Amino acid sequence: MDNFIGVDIGGTSVKIGVVTSEGKLLKKDIIEINPKAEYEEIITPVKDWIQLFLKNEFKRSINAIGIGTPGFIDKRTGVLVSGSENVPMLKKHATAKLLEDFTGIPAYQDNDGTCATAGELMFGKGQKYKDFVMITLGTGIGGGLVLNGKIYRGSKGFAAEIGHMCLDPNGSWCNCGSRGCFEQYASGPAIVKNYTNKLIKRGIEINENITAKYIFDNAYTNKKILGEIAREVIEETGLKIAQAFGTLLNILNLEAFIIGGGISKSGELLLPSIKRHLFDFVWPELGKDVAIMIAGLQNDAGIMGAAAMAYERLRV
Amino acid sequence: MDNFIGVDIGGTSVKIGVVTSEGKLLKKDIIEINPKAEYEEIITPVKDWIQLFLKNEFKRSINAIGIGTPGFIDKRTGVLVSGSENVPMLKKHATAKLLEDFTGIPAYQDNDGTCATAGELMFGKGQKYKDFVMITLGTGIGGGLVLNGKIYRGSKGFAAEIGHMCLDPNGSWCNCGSRGCFEQYASGPAIVKNYTNKLIKRGIEINENITAKYIFDNAYTNKKILGEIAREVIEETGLKIAQAFGTLLNILNLEAFIIGGGISKSGELLLPSIKRHLFDFVWPELGKDVAIMIAGLQNDAGIMGAAAMAYERLRV
Repeated sequence: MDNFIGVDIGGTSVKIGVVTSEGKLLKKDIIEINPKAEYEEIITPVKDWIQLFLKNEFKRSINAIGIGTPGFIDKRTGVLVSGSENVPMLKKHATAKLLEDFTGIPAYQDNDGTCATAGELMFGKGQKYKDFVMITLGTGIGGGLVLNGKIYRGSKGFAAEIGHMCLDPNGSWCNCGSRGCFEQYASGPAIVKNYTNKLIKRGIEINENITAKYIFDNAYTNKKILGEIAREVIEETGLKIAQAFGTLLNILNLEAFIIGGGISKSGELLLPSIKRHLFDFVWPELGKDVAIMIAGLQNDAGIMGAAAMAYERLRV
Repeated sequence: MDNFIGVDIGGTSVKIGVVTSEGKLLKKDIIEINPKAEYEEIITPVKDWIQLFLKNEFKRSINAIGIGTPGFIDKRTGVLVSGSENVPMLKKHATAKLLEDFTGIPAYQDNDGTCATAGELMFGKGQKYKDFVMITLGTGIGGGLVLNGKIYRGSKGFAAEIGHMCLDPNGSWCNCGSRGCFEQYASGPAIVKNYTNKLIKRGIEINENITAKYIFDNAYTNKKILGEIAREVIEETGLKIAQAFGTLLNILNLEAFIIGGGISKSGELLLPSIKRHLFDFVWPELGKDVAIMIAGLQNDAGIMGAAAMAYERLRV
């Protein structure tokens, strides 16, 4: 049996664990980090963790280490070139090379959307598809592409910047500098903004801390106006996701979409709206028999995805 | 040296010829067809042409036959399932299998946009790129995808339905049943419609038969109002192409775009507008160093592309 270390570096913590090639999570830890820390302050505890693991479990050989982070990682050099605003200290570093030099074990770094996609491809719902797109709905929208059974990374490794597909050239300005980006309609903050705007317009006072989860919960359970508005927001979010999926289908003739990320547990509620609107945006022949589903991996998806990505790259 | 027969079946004629693996067109003929003819009436002269060629030039062996047509060809069965409204008799036929059985030579059929892309990949401007998209601007908008150096066809063979990417969910209705398709903004008829609308709104009488070529010619040479309007139309067309390219870049992290099709000879005029607007629609990291150019193959692109596609599929 092969074993992989998965390292998922986010804004406030590093999740780290060991995953087998059968997708079993053997061990897991969370290292809290200060998002403003220096690079060394984050990497040193990761190195320590790996060193301790290798020492204590010397009989269990590790085939490769996978590291998932935000941002654009140049696939040629391994350097994170930009886009890691939540964990700024990662920028300009080749973290995989550093860990590989330190451990002597092959190490790979990829964008967290790519890692999530690798996780679904190896251990989740993607196992039965050769051509699919995964999207991760959270604070932003990320994702990854599987084409001909393999992760497609693009010429520099930056592919699948799905959250910034333009859905409306006259839409809201995005903080990327473009207008009408997908993220402006279906990310967590966009869903919350749509909902709170609707409350404000109806003169309904907002007492609670509104989150996307709160909205999805209300849509399920609330029979009154707040539930109606929540269901309307979900309907509109599904419409926009359908538009993005339609465009992706027209370009790539996919078999399936997998929806993951922070929203995905509540995401089942989005599926009817997405499916109902899909054919408004796709050439009929390309919309047939397309499966749309919620991700298989939920908890630990970050560690599992990073490990799966290492597994995938080791085999290529 | 290897030789390939290229067959380009369009609405009013079949173009057929022999192309070497170095991209030399050895022989070429045009067979006029009646678009309302039965299937046999179109295929019999093609079979006759091939039979005569093989008899007369028996020393010149043919490695494969490539057939380019409109429509969706199921890559598993080789059957054209839909989308060939201009040459309706092709529907439900597996033309490659028929020619393969007749000649004993491997034969392949693909969408004409895919063939055009194969032509550029093997013999044209695509030779130096591993990840690019070709678009063909004509009566409609088609194209093809080259990813990791190979043509990407999608799960059923229907990929690259680029003309029906939604650029504006509130845009003009397209005859595909969706709104705001790319084709509604940058195909030949869309360019003509935009131009004539502008003339009508300004009370300018239209005496000539307006074509996209006429508009491009005027933009070059006419210093007066018609030239100004023509340049405005080209500017607006370039903006929409930039939006489509931005979305494709965000998804696929490409190196280049190649513009072919009927419009492409005049297309140089579009490039400044496309390049100027590209960064309005793409994440900066993915817009860097992207080449945008007019196709290398012009005359005989149909035959060359069909032959190149056969060459490409024989090698896979």
